Amino acid sequence: MPEPTTPQKPKTRVLTGDTPTGRLHLGHFVGSIERRLAMQHQHECFFLLANMHAFTTRWDKPDEIRADTIEIVKDWLSCGIDPSLAHVVLQTEVPAIAELSWFFAMLIPFNRVMSNPTIKTEIDAKGLGDSYPFGFPLYSVGQCADILAFRPAFVPVGEDQVPHIEMCRFVAGKFNQVYCAVNNRTPEDDHVKAGGVFPIPKAKVGRVARLPGIDGTHKMSKSLGNAIFLSDPPKEVQKKINRIFTGRQSATEPGDVNNALMQFVDAFIPQERAAELKDRYARGDNLGDGHIKQELAEAINALLEPMRARRAEYDKPGRTGDDTVIDIIRRGTARANEVAEETLWMAKEAMRLGFFRRGLTTA
Amino acid sequence: MPEPTTPQKPKTRVLTGDTPTGRLHLGHFVGSIERRLAMQHQHECFFLLANMHAFTTRWDKPDEIRADTIEIVKDWLSCGIDPSLAHVVLQTEVPAIAELSWFFAMLIPFNRVMSNPTIKTEIDAKGLGDSYPFGFPLYSVGQCADILAFRPAFVPVGEDQVPHIEMCRFVAGKFNQVYCAVNNRTPEDDHVKAGGVFPIPKAKVGRVARLPGIDGTHKMSKSLGNAIFLSDPPKEVQKKINRIFTGRQSATEPGDVNNALMQFVDAFIPQERAAELKDRYARGDNLGDGHIKQELAEAINALLEPMRARRAEYDKPGRTGDDTVIDIIRRGTARANEVAEETLWMAKEAMRLGFFRRGLTTA
Repeated sequence: MPEPTTPQKPKTRVLTGDTPTGRLHLGHFVGSIERRLAMQHQHECFFLLANMHAFTTRWDKPDEIRADTIEIVKDWLSCGIDPSLAHVVLQTEVPAIAELSWFFAMLIPFNRVMSNPTIKTEIDAKGLGDSYPFGFPLYSVGQCADILAFRPAFVPVGEDQVPHIEMCRFVAGKFNQVYCAVNNRTPEDDHVKAGGVFPIPKAKVGRVARLPGIDGTHKMSKSLGNAIFLSDPPKEVQKKINRIFTGRQSATEPGDVNNALMQFVDAFIPQERAAELKDRYARGDNLGDGHIKQELAEAINALLEPMRARRAEYDKPGRTGDDTVIDIIRRGTARANEVAEETLWMAKEAMRLGFFRRGLTTA
Repeated sequence: MPEPTTPQKPKTRVLTGDTPTGRLHLGHFVGSIERRLAMQHQHECFFLLANMHAFTTRWDKPDEIRADTIEIVKDWLSCGIDPSLAHVVLQTEVPAIAELSWFFAMLIPFNRVMSNPTIKTEIDAKGLGDSYPFGFPLYSVGQCADILAFRPAFVPVGEDQVPHIEMCRFVAGKFNQVYCAVNNRTPEDDHVKAGGVFPIPKAKVGRVARLPGIDGTHKMSKSLGNAIFLSDPPKEVQKKINRIFTGRQSATEPGDVNNALMQFVDAFIPQERAAELKDRYARGDNLGDGHIKQELAEAINALLEPMRARRAEYDKPGRTGDDTVIDIIRRGTARANEVAEETLWMAKEAMRLGFFRRGLTTA
């Protein structure tokens, strides 16, 4: 007699993504992507290409945004994101995201959006001054919809995105209270059990919350020119690592174990070996920066080598890598729309907007 | 031999609509609806139920908004809007509107949205103070999408909506210039010919741009309690008209032909007879206010009588008037989505967002 099959518990869903603004670098990898690689085996993962977000600062560069959208998928696939496990989702082909943005915009006070610290920081960092489009603050509302369209349990993000996730958690709770009669004392983990449409998602900050750039000062960032890209060739990696400045004069001078170089050691060299290096570094035990930089570059290149190999497959001349990528996006987006359309209908019913159903197919 | 058939020129499209905030009144009728009745014979008309807009100030009253949505359709049908000629469209079932809102939000400067005089006036008029949702200013961007989703030639609106239409015309032109290489010196009527996705629509203000309320001072408005509703019974109409204050003491006192009473005469009594009354009124030629008010109420009641009769059909007990209305909305929205999905795809292609197609069906 065959054993009775236990019904499989449905996988929890995870949502995260990137704005296609150019090639990914090591900061992205240790801050978020590394975690995605693990999560794709445990959860149903949706990785969002936030291409509409790219228009907030580059609305007049649609060709660049399109190219970056394709490129970032190639970066993801190179890292080991597996489209047979996880869904690559194109934001502009998930209409429910745009529609939920409207619903949430009605629940978030204008002043709360405008006082979001991440928005202020970005306006300063990007030098937008007074001349940014309405889409710029709108985006922080839209990000709530990006996430909640998938009713995820977890959202792996970089540390700087935590205020956005806070707004998302706020609006999920408020929606449940206003439209689903969830009590405002209901513990956040029980909102769905209590009839709420939206779970209150949890941010998961990556293993390395903040990787410095090779300037040793700022966070690694493409726009600051201090980044090591996942697609950099081995020699370029070594050259960039060599540029990390420590101010240390000799192999016997005790070093600062919290400096940028040591932060890289922590991020990319296995724990035990990193501890040994840091111990000798602190004591100035005959350990030169040059030696560390070589070992570090080797470790990073070992990490990047399989990515380079996978990447080469998509960049081969004659092979229509872009079509392959678009097909992966199409399939991921089709699955994303199954979930997002269900979410949208649940939200509409709660808001007394459920007049009639619709069907959406991805061709 | 049969005559060769001339191919029919496709009808130009017209978009207008109302936010479901309660019963329609005479100000709506002479300001906009009257014009719709004529237009539905000449153009392909889309009449939008802007139900999402209602959430900007009543986000916590979804039941009221749903009821008002049904009621306003009954008002439209009572006025003579003919669903076999014109399409009744539910905003929240046209996803392209939400998506185009995003596209346009990237092209409209934040400061331009916030300095829109209509927004400021509404914030004051509705006493919103500092506590309005982000959806409130978002709505003025959304209104551009409400309109442009249908690429209409004309937009019949009330005078107070003209600044919104100006923003819509601005964004249509900017989209064509940024994404369709339309020259910024191209005359607005030639944008489509020059390759632009969007025609630059023209506002059409109604025959009576501003009908005063029965208080004689403010514009007729439900929230000011000075309105005569299309669904008011005959005696109520007479009673309200009688309350219009002129300050005139006798039938021989020369009257002000621009006062509120005379504005009603202009709006509701046939031109020739209105001219005669105004002439005698100005001269104080034995014409009492009471007499005028009776003639005026009779004219208004004659206008409203067929509306009352049609309305009664939908309100009959036992008849499922709401289901009939929802079916009219469903059919109108299905046709609306044919046009709006086409617009969205054209916009996506122009913005280099045309990765793959989708299909949308209204069930």
